[in-house]
Amino acid sequence: MIVKMSRRATLDEIAAVEERLHGWGYKTGKMVGEEITLIGVYGDITRLPTGELQEMGGVDGLIPISKAYKRVAQKGAPGNLLHSAVRIGNVEVGGEELTVVAGPCSVESEAQIMESARLVKAAGANALRGGVVKYRSSPYSGWEGIGANSEEALRNGLQLIVKAGREFDLPTVVEVLDANDVSIYEDLGVDCIQVGEPNSKNQALLNRLRETSLPVIHKRGNSLDIEAYLLWVERIMAGGKENVILCERGIVSPNKYTRNTLDLGGIAAFHYQLSCLPIAVDASHGTGLRDLVHPLTLAGIMAGASMVLVETHPNPLIAKSDGFQGLFPQQFDHLVNACQQVWALRRSIEPLYTPSAAWEQEYEIRMPSDKKRFFGAS
Amino acid sequence: MIVKMSRRATLDEIAAVEERLHGWGYKTGKMVGEEITLIGVYGDITRLPTGELQEMGGVDGLIPISKAYKRVAQKGAPGNLLHSAVRIGNVEVGGEELTVVAGPCSVESEAQIMESARLVKAAGANALRGGVVKYRSSPYSGWEGIGANSEEALRNGLQLIVKAGREFDLPTVVEVLDANDVSIYEDLGVDCIQVGEPNSKNQALLNRLRETSLPVIHKRGNSLDIEAYLLWVERIMAGGKENVILCERGIVSPNKYTRNTLDLGGIAAFHYQLSCLPIAVDASHGTGLRDLVHPLTLAGIMAGASMVLVETHPNPLIAKSDGFQGLFPQQFDHLVNACQQVWALRRSIEPLYTPSAAWEQEYEIRMPSDKKRFFGAS
Amino acid sequence: MIVKMSRRATLDEIAAVEERLHGWGYKTGKMVGEEITLIGVYGDITRLPTGELQEMGGVDGLIPISKAYKRVAQKGAPGNLLHSAVRIGNVEVGGEELTVVAGPCSVESEAQIMESARLVKAAGANALRGGVVKYRSSPYSGWEGIGANSEEALRNGLQLIVKAGREFDLPTVVEVLDANDVSIYEDLGVDCIQVGEPNSKNQALLNRLRETSLPVIHKRGNSLDIEAYLLWVERIMAGGKENVILCERGIVSPNKYTRNTLDLGGIAAFHYQLSCLPIAVDASHGTGLRDLVHPLTLAGIMAGASMVLVETHPNPLIAKSDGFQGLFPQQFDHLVNACQQVWALRRSIEPLYTPSAAWEQEYEIRMPSDKKRFFGAS
Amino acid sequence: MIVKMSRRATLDEIAAVEERLHGWGYKTGKMVGEEITLIGVYGDITRLPTGELQEMGGVDGLIPISKAYKRVAQKGAPGNLLHSAVRIGNVEVGGEELTVVAGPCSVESEAQIMESARLVKAAGANALRGGVVKYRSSPYSGWEGIGANSEEALRNGLQLIVKAGREFDLPTVVEVLDANDVSIYEDLGVDCIQVGEPNSKNQALLNRLRETSLPVIHKRGNSLDIEAYLLWVERIMAGGKENVILCERGIVSPNKYTRNTLDLGGIAAFHYQLSCLPIAVDASHGTGLRDLVHPLTLAGIMAGASMVLVETHPNPLIAKSDGFQGLFPQQFDHLVNACQQVWALRRSIEPLYTPSAAWEQEYEIRMPSDKKRFFGAS
Repeated sequence: MIVKMSRRATLDEIAAVEERLHGWGYKTGKMVGEEITLIGVYGDITRLPTGELQEMGGVDGLIPISKAYKRVAQKGAPGNLLHSAVRIGNVEVGGEELTVVAGPCSVESEAQIMESARLVKAAGANALRGGVVKYRSSPYSGWEGIGANSEEALRNGLQLIVKAGREFDLPTVVEVLDANDVSIYEDLGVDCIQVGEPNSKNQALLNRLRETSLPVIHKRGNSLDIEAYLLWVERIMAGGKENVILCERGIVSPNKYTRNTLDLGGIAAFHYQLSCLPIAVDASHGTGLRDLVHPLTLAGIMAGASMVLVETHPNPLIAKSDGFQGLFPQQFDHLVNACQQVWALRRSIEPLYTPSAAWEQEYEIRMPSDKKRFFGAS
Repeated sequence: MIVKMSRRATLDEIAAVEERLHGWGYKTGKMVGEEITLIGVYGDITRLPTGELQEMGGVDGLIPISKAYKRVAQKGAPGNLLHSAVRIGNVEVGGEELTVVAGPCSVESEAQIMESARLVKAAGANALRGGVVKYRSSPYSGWEGIGANSEEALRNGLQLIVKAGREFDLPTVVEVLDANDVSIYEDLGVDCIQVGEPNSKNQALLNRLRETSLPVIHKRGNSLDIEAYLLWVERIMAGGKENVILCERGIVSPNKYTRNTLDLGGIAAFHYQLSCLPIAVDASHGTGLRDLVHPLTLAGIMAGASMVLVETHPNPLIAKSDGFQGLFPQQFDHLVNACQQVWALRRSIEPLYTPSAAWEQEYEIRMPSDKKRFFGAS
Repeated sequence: MIVKMSRRATLDEIAAVEERLHGWGYKTGKMVGEEITLIGVYGDITRLPTGELQEMGGVDGLIPISKAYKRVAQKGAPGNLLHSAVRIGNVEVGGEELTVVAGPCSVESEAQIMESARLVKAAGANALRGGVVKYRSSPYSGWEGIGANSEEALRNGLQLIVKAGREFDLPTVVEVLDANDVSIYEDLGVDCIQVGEPNSKNQALLNRLRETSLPVIHKRGNSLDIEAYLLWVERIMAGGKENVILCERGIVSPNKYTRNTLDLGGIAAFHYQLSCLPIAVDASHGTGLRDLVHPLTLAGIMAGASMVLVETHPNPLIAKSDGFQGLFPQQFDHLVNACQQVWALRRSIEPLYTPSAAWEQEYEIRMPSDKKRFFGAS
Repeated sequence: MIVKMSRRATLDEIAAVEERLHGWGYKTGKMVGEEITLIGVYGDITRLPTGELQEMGGVDGLIPISKAYKRVAQKGAPGNLLHSAVRIGNVEVGGEELTVVAGPCSVESEAQIMESARLVKAAGANALRGGVVKYRSSPYSGWEGIGANSEEALRNGLQLIVKAGREFDLPTVVEVLDANDVSIYEDLGVDCIQVGEPNSKNQALLNRLRETSLPVIHKRGNSLDIEAYLLWVERIMAGGKENVILCERGIVSPNKYTRNTLDLGGIAAFHYQLSCLPIAVDASHGTGLRDLVHPLTLAGIMAGASMVLVETHPNPLIAKSDGFQGLFPQQFDHLVNACQQVWALRRSIEPLYTPSAAWEQEYEIRMPSDKKRFFGAS
């Protein structure tokens, strides 16, 4: 962190800032320009009382240098990054195997979710998803999920998907919309809680999730920069919780053709540069178009995802919600097959990825400082 | 609403769709092209079971023609629009007078909120704002509002601002972060509930607000199109609630210089074209820069806002949150003065605004169909 | 400018960078941290060979501190900014008077542009606009302007608008699409050249415009940040040219309802913080909706614009291009009337605008450093 | 195309519109609602005089139904799409083989471009890229390419890269910035002309390129929707030109971490749904970060690209421009190796991609209309 002092800051004020920082246990460095003085702060920045610092006389602002998302952040050196694995039921996410989580947008009935689970299992997927309470863009859609209108309905809906999951040995992933409902999800044996895009910045909900032992998939808000998103994820982990999974599902852009713009650059940045957490790609919401789910899911794995979220339905033509992006069962079969091949290839060619840090050093060594202008004659 | 049938739709399928629509009480029209058949649907579209319709054989999609936000929508004919007024305590919003709601980002202490209320009243503003639980982009900021950590703290914090409001005869506007807390706000005499930008799409919270009799200010989410926002507002009003206020506070864009991009085109569209509800402009969050609050607030009034939300603080240099966008008391005094002048001018020149509908008719009448190509010789 | 040295930079490399900077005539400051060394560079940064600097051993990157758009930038101290005026023919832009530039999207015929000029003059506007070669989103629109298909057509088209301007004593503003055509505009007596949004980053065209003595209106590209835009404007001025006018005409955003999102925060930032140049607001393109042109133009003046660009047409229902955003003549009359009132008010209340710099100082003086925590007891 | 008549349209006006359309050779259909009449237009819409139509009495607007980019558009039925191949010198793009085009951002000297060509060839790439005139965001960068300041310099620069290409049997791809320069590129034997992002909407340049026989790579503008981009590409092809290549290189979004947001959903949409043209992925500009080029290039191939554009440099630490995104030679070697493996896999698993059209039909057949509500009991 750099503290930028104002043009009118007095020497006393500068000294006071340094003293306060030392009092908090930080070391400092100082750069005195003709107009502006900058004070560098060294130490664990997550504990820095930035508000108090900004209040001090002569302080003009703070310029962050290192990351504020310490727990989400990448561990290890470039070229040897350490990734965490997270367990959902008996499935390990972010380890040796690709994790495919699939199912209908909504749980519609016992028969439908049972049939969905059967198809998902048969295709070789690893976990079952299905919404019990649903976001709807219009309040007049007339259907907000099988569990929408009472706690009893919610319990019944959750029981249906949990039953289907157990019948076919698939751990279950269900979205929660209200901080108050989390304990019901825990009680009824849901295996993983999902935070949807509209709740990506719901502070009350994220704070509540600090206290659950269940793994959490936190979907990126569609207006969040790559690093801003990680700060919201950090909120769940700030108290020590570790089993969190990132999910890229599309952001806003000038695009109108696709419902969202799936940011695979984000996935690559999370995986190769910024975060130790496993990353899911959700091309169903990321494109909103059934026929783009296949290529974008494969591209997402290639970019760095180790989990795939896909909507599929025994018959998407009659799905109660999001029917336009759900895959037909045969398409889903094909996709799982293709995903496994792409995952295997990515794993086998990952050694071909070499971060620049190594080369930078070698190139600097190889070329002495005074010869660095390339082929100097030209 | 237009139902677009697929290229492969059979005559039976087309007939089935028409029959189903008639069964639901709608009238239909049909346009049979060489490739595609379109079926127009006439009647109250808010009751249309769109999910079921999309499931029917041969249906390719639905093309909306009229608005899905019936209660939010503009009433009256162009040139004679009817706007609703909403009461906050004893203040009428959206009527003859401009409403200025001001105060600190956060309630920090009794002394601070009392002094804030005094300054706000003295400047001529109409209502007091102040956050008791705060959004923070980093979980490590160490301060999430005076009411953050327990129900007791929340109650104490709310009591402070309500007391300050009553002392200075200012109704109070406070943001709520959790559906569960709404009844506490009602109990303690808060006069208006605010939904912040991060919760703009928090379905559980919006559904809960249907049941409060308190007026609600619903801030536009920063990734929402103008009409998509109105659909989320409609959610609060869907059950009949009427006292809701729109608020423009900035959206995402390629801008980096300002924290958000204040969409004054949105304000004009709400006021002159789309909605009967009063509209607030929040230039504090809309720009994130103290020195742009003044011009943007004035521009917002000129564009169609009838309420102004402004952050001000007895000394913004030491504010615990958002200090960079809070006005100094003298700046706030000046701004209220300027606002009143701009409001008076807008009211006096509003008759100069004439929507095109009137002119379109006149120009079409004046110029017969066969002479419509202007100065045809050239 | 701050030079950030890499973690592996040697003491020799750091010394070499300092020495090189001194050799170029810059002064330096240095901040030595435990991990990273930063070197501050003081002097005229516009002459700094940044490429060469980045090539030096141990340099990790450059962190800009001050503006790269020296000529576009604001002159004077906060509270006493100096704005330049620019002449278009006999009209002074950015001075005591508001400048209204209006006319049809396209010059369609001599009769049409003459009638347009008459109406524009009668309404009290100051200059005449009209396109002779037009951007079209589809190549099949069949009409790319009266001057589109040959140099002869271009000359004839330009002559029409120049003639109309002279007939009614209105200087003329015409868009140019090709660097090659600039000299034709100069020859034929066009008074001001406009660079359209699609050419906002057309480097060849901007470089060519350095050499014209005609004033240039440079429209902001719809994907450009506020400061990134100013850098493209700086390109025209880099050789010393001074008579340039900024224009805000809308940027991309999540909005679909309006054609673009008019960034009035940009206008305020240009006028009050960043640039000495006059600023135009173009609400016709900024909204794409005729009935939003009136409120957004007025809001733009209130935000800081001193020039207004408006499309109007003797009968917009039959305009050959952009008919949906052109004003009916009566609407335009009303708008000019309203603009003058808004301009007068802004000028009279501008003294109420006080930048924070003044107050910051006073508040810091009034409140000694050790008492800065407000009402410390709480 | 649907013509939407206004609410006040008379029967005569409706008849007049139909008659005019019939006179132009179109067939029409009509849907008469209680409030609004819609008229469908059937035939070759690219010839429709939309301007004239919009001028007619009672016409409220036009609603497009089919594509305006006829030549760019996808040929063939879903599941059996026909893709065009384009030749660059002796290399076929969009055929059986992946095309890798690589080289430095800028041609800096004969030695540098020769060494670059050698490395590019040795790694197994297919064509050589290198800029001779460069876009620069600041006018003060002091380097705008080896060919920047005169026609002579441009000719010399182009000769260098053409010589290097011939020496190593690599066709050359060079960006053009000015319509005027196209014939120089043709004269000197450049094999492919590139339109950069800042010129994506440069109408004068695109019109000029209709007349060249050289293949053209047209980079997508960073503010363009997927289909809006294709309309600008259509402009080059409108006169019959066929050898055009699409290029995705990133669009604007809320992201700040990456320089642009690479839209792989766009690539998939182009390849699988919208266009017969080959598609290039440019992850160097699409991310702006050297260490994300590898994963995003591979993901781009998996999404549907058949050409790869990559910046590499003998020593990117000393590149004169865009050094932060150029690959080290060893990284580039690895990337080409990985690209070939990903390409081979995509080709082998492409049969697993089945568009929905087939399944939709089967599912509709299998499930009779009156039984389509899934497991109706629930």
